[in-house]
Amino acid sequence: MQRIIGIDPGSRLTGYGVIHLERGTLAFMSCGVIKTDSGLPLSYRLNQIFDGINEVIQLHEPDVAAVEDVFLASNPRSALKLGQARGAAVVAAMQNSLPVHDYSPKMVKQAVTGYGQADKEQVQHMVRVLLGLKKSPSSDAADALAVAICHANQFRI
Amino acid sequence: MQRIIGIDPGSRLTGYGVIHLERGTLAFMSCGVIKTDSGLPLSYRLNQIFDGINEVIQLHEPDVAAVEDVFLASNPRSALKLGQARGAAVVAAMQNSLPVHDYSPKMVKQAVTGYGQADKEQVQHMVRVLLGLKKSPSSDAADALAVAICHANQFRI
Repeated sequence: MQRIIGIDPGSRLTGYGVIHLERGTLAFMSCGVIKTDSGLPLSYRLNQIFDGINEVIQLHEPDVAAVEDVFLASNPRSALKLGQARGAAVVAAMQNSLPVHDYSPKMVKQAVTGYGQADKEQVQHMVRVLLGLKKSPSSDAADALAVAICHANQFRI
Repeated sequence: MQRIIGIDPGSRLTGYGVIHLERGTLAFMSCGVIKTDSGLPLSYRLNQIFDGINEVIQLHEPDVAAVEDVFLASNPRSALKLGQARGAAVVAAMQNSLPVHDYSPKMVKQAVTGYGQADKEQVQHMVRVLLGLKKSPSSDAADALAVAICHANQFRI
């Protein structure tokens, strides 16, 4: 059995999702969103991301992390913030000795919907179906679960 | 007395410099460069930055960190890497309970040379003069010391 944590970093909202893969079958374990305090300076928010991911890892003990790559946002300022958020999340995984794998947004969408340009609703829907959830997770949590599924697929095929 | 660690983050080279400020006088404590292994994936290199900064903080016990802001590089890909490196460095400081202050490259240059567009040699020269060093530190270490001096100047004026 392998436990995978998927992470979708963001300076405001960082989604996480933990799944496990056993004999080719995916199962849901946990998901959620680390919401940083928008009234605080970025350094504090980066630390909240580190602490939040660290806590999830301590609780669910994944074996590996899959982290969505930073995309080149239309606004370069937000891309730089996003980069810092990603750095905080990656380091939290590495400090827990988890190997970190990177997946582009396109690869993630392709993995769960079969279409690299799929919209957020489609990703939410397919994550729900693939993991047999009763309700769709929030968009950020669904994205994180999709990253984890994307990583799991590397071993299922 | 206040000890300040200045950090100039980079995915390949992260400069650090520690100074102390006592009764309005600056003194040099330490400086150097964390060189990440270019053969390794970015996640490992981010972790090397975190570990390196963590080690310097444990050794020299600064009270506060000053970190150079990410500039909008002409190449957006390198800006995103730089953002992640900065995130790793900031989180290392925050995890050691250091308050983190941000300074733009322009503010840093202004602080040590009086000119916001100063070149690297000018910064190296002035850092050497201001801290009374016998030799100029390497460019990345000098930049980090300049960030620390920039922070110190907020309290000296």
